[in-house]
Amino acid sequence: MSELPSSRALPRGFRFASTSCGLKKRGHTGSLDVALIVSDAPASAAAVFTQNLVQAPPVVLSRRHVRESADAMRAVIVNSGNANCSVGPGGMIASRSTADRVAESLGCRENQVVVCSTGVIGVPLPVERILGAVPELTSTLEFSPKAFDGLTRAIMTTDTRPKHATSMYTAAGKTIRIAGCAKGAGMIHPNMATMLAFVVTDAAVAPRVLDRALREVVARTFNSITVDGDSSTNDTLLVLANGASGAKPLTQAKGAEYAKFVAALEQVCKTLALGIVEDGEGATHVVEIEVRGAPSDAAAKQVAQTIALSSLVKTAIAGADPNWGRILAAAGRSGVTFDPDRAEIWLGGIKMYGPPKGKTWSVALPLDEGAAHTRLLEKNIPIVVDLHQGRGKALMWTCDFTAEYVHINASYRT
Amino acid sequence: MSELPSSRALPRGFRFASTSCGLKKRGHTGSLDVALIVSDAPASAAAVFTQNLVQAPPVVLSRRHVRESADAMRAVIVNSGNANCSVGPGGMIASRSTADRVAESLGCRENQVVVCSTGVIGVPLPVERILGAVPELTSTLEFSPKAFDGLTRAIMTTDTRPKHATSMYTAAGKTIRIAGCAKGAGMIHPNMATMLAFVVTDAAVAPRVLDRALREVVARTFNSITVDGDSSTNDTLLVLANGASGAKPLTQAKGAEYAKFVAALEQVCKTLALGIVEDGEGATHVVEIEVRGAPSDAAAKQVAQTIALSSLVKTAIAGADPNWGRILAAAGRSGVTFDPDRAEIWLGGIKMYGPPKGKTWSVALPLDEGAAHTRLLEKNIPIVVDLHQGRGKALMWTCDFTAEYVHINASYRT
Repeated sequence: MSELPSSRALPRGFRFASTSCGLKKRGHTGSLDVALIVSDAPASAAAVFTQNLVQAPPVVLSRRHVRESADAMRAVIVNSGNANCSVGPGGMIASRSTADRVAESLGCRENQVVVCSTGVIGVPLPVERILGAVPELTSTLEFSPKAFDGLTRAIMTTDTRPKHATSMYTAAGKTIRIAGCAKGAGMIHPNMATMLAFVVTDAAVAPRVLDRALREVVARTFNSITVDGDSSTNDTLLVLANGASGAKPLTQAKGAEYAKFVAALEQVCKTLALGIVEDGEGATHVVEIEVRGAPSDAAAKQVAQTIALSSLVKTAIAGADPNWGRILAAAGRSGVTFDPDRAEIWLGGIKMYGPPKGKTWSVALPLDEGAAHTRLLEKNIPIVVDLHQGRGKALMWTCDFTAEYVHINASYRT
Repeated sequence: MSELPSSRALPRGFRFASTSCGLKKRGHTGSLDVALIVSDAPASAAAVFTQNLVQAPPVVLSRRHVRESADAMRAVIVNSGNANCSVGPGGMIASRSTADRVAESLGCRENQVVVCSTGVIGVPLPVERILGAVPELTSTLEFSPKAFDGLTRAIMTTDTRPKHATSMYTAAGKTIRIAGCAKGAGMIHPNMATMLAFVVTDAAVAPRVLDRALREVVARTFNSITVDGDSSTNDTLLVLANGASGAKPLTQAKGAEYAKFVAALEQVCKTLALGIVEDGEGATHVVEIEVRGAPSDAAAKQVAQTIALSSLVKTAIAGADPNWGRILAAAGRSGVTFDPDRAEIWLGGIKMYGPPKGKTWSVALPLDEGAAHTRLLEKNIPIVVDLHQGRGKALMWTCDFTAEYVHINASYRT
């Protein structure tokens, strides 16, 4: 994932730029800390934002701009190193003046610009540094893999690697391209407010259809991952569709062309979401949790989420411990009703709990503990829980919970 | 808390015994693994059990026995080293035969005996070892601090120290005594199903009044602590009141005598509950979370619980990091509505977030980071959050989240 995307895969009609304006100390992620995405033509825009009650001013402002300019978005400006959150009324002034400056520089309206910030909470944003960087950003905009890579690096904070993904398909002879990048490792790091993802496509999609597609895809991708259960104050996922492919516009959320678009968007979002899990703070395993046989899909998701958030399940995975009892106990406290005596559990592809041959009640099945331990040392760990209560199912992804997570998050900020 | 209680403080009319029957390997907690509590006269009984859907057979059986013999309980038999949970129908047979054997030995009915188990899940209980220990237990019953201490040690699993508490008060010239013991460090340890607490008193209390008093007290003590959010399959808190003090029976849940009893019971339960937090797996700090100014008490508890369960808050406390932003972000995702711009946060007694003098909106307040860090190295850390939305308040206790917790829980069981 950390190779550059090819020029061929980059959606047409977008340009990117990034630079350092002194918000972020030079570290393993480099010093790039501000970036600009510009769509040459007004683009359809759809976005989802954090559900946290504490919302940073850039989130409040960008939600308004996406609502007002869903059919005419022109740019995104994003900084890392400072979340511009919980700093009093100065926060909104900083975000608005950033949007103003970019709009002036591009010759568009303020509400055609999305503003995102990620980094430390509670420290006033030195916005003049961002304003000062706007001329350089606008004069160095480029359609190139290198410029796109700069964007993916400028948004990194505690990430250990840049995360991007692309997808292409054809619609009536026209090639449609989707490219995205994301950042996020813990939901919040030492005062860092985190998850950001930007997806751009040269498909032509009506704003309402784009919004619908995004919500469908988000439920199965970004909203199906968790690192530590702590949601951030700045989470933003934005999609821009500028139509530069020349393909026929999607005006309805149905039909074969819509399905193709959703599938390609889902591929990009899933790659980015799993990239976040894989790069979770301290993570050594990626865990896929499948719950089936639940009374409903919502109930299945509730069970999957309780398992995905259980510290005891996540530490067992870190230790390659075939500890199915913790999975059963987590399901049991999820609030979903099922009969534990009929449930079945597979861990790492090995059935560990279920009815033995000829019996109707579940017990611990004979287990080669050494072999199970060896299997659980592998990177990707599937967990399957069958509740035998109905047809509801859900998939979630999480990472394991290691001492390194504690080290990263307990370190005194110096 | 690890000194023995004095004979003077032990409730009259109870005897205790413990021994080793080979369920637990000899470790730092010794090899005692089965214990018996007997009330010489039939006692009032009240209990609360785990809310987990997965309930071990001893929980199912004991709930029934407490319902059937709430005015005539005689004994409690408890083992550690095996939770007798998720083992198929044999589990209930094992619990029933244990109650039978104790009843036979004491000359009472099976349903006058409470049965508790704690330890590994999913491994069939070698019940013949417990049955074989019953004669020794019944023949060595004693009213003595040493015998009570044996009980507190026989129930330990991952606990690093025994946890007990006593309280005395006088009612119309009669001395009333309450003594309790508890075990539990993580809610579940490597397949260990955990929290158990037993409280005995020589007060005379009608069963319905005892039940009411217990529920009042539990809400403010055991249900206000959390170590890791994982509730167990075997959690049991049982109170027996045998009237041996000769004091006038409490027949109503009101009045001065009732209030005295509740206060003394609360003191014992709070000491035991805080003992569990202090002995939490890997814990180095005890954190008291006070939420006030909430729309309701229930809302305050919801906010307090979200903070108490936040991995990011708990790792920050482990690192003595004055990271109030994580507290605000946790409150923000609790589901309770408040205005973050008016909230105030104190950490370790230091106000870190609130309106500066002459302002009406909250921001990060000037902080001497070094002094704050030094304060947070102390053992007891108070967190206060004022939401300024109403009069609702709640207190919760938790421990910090250290790399040692991960080490304990990630270790492959060998």
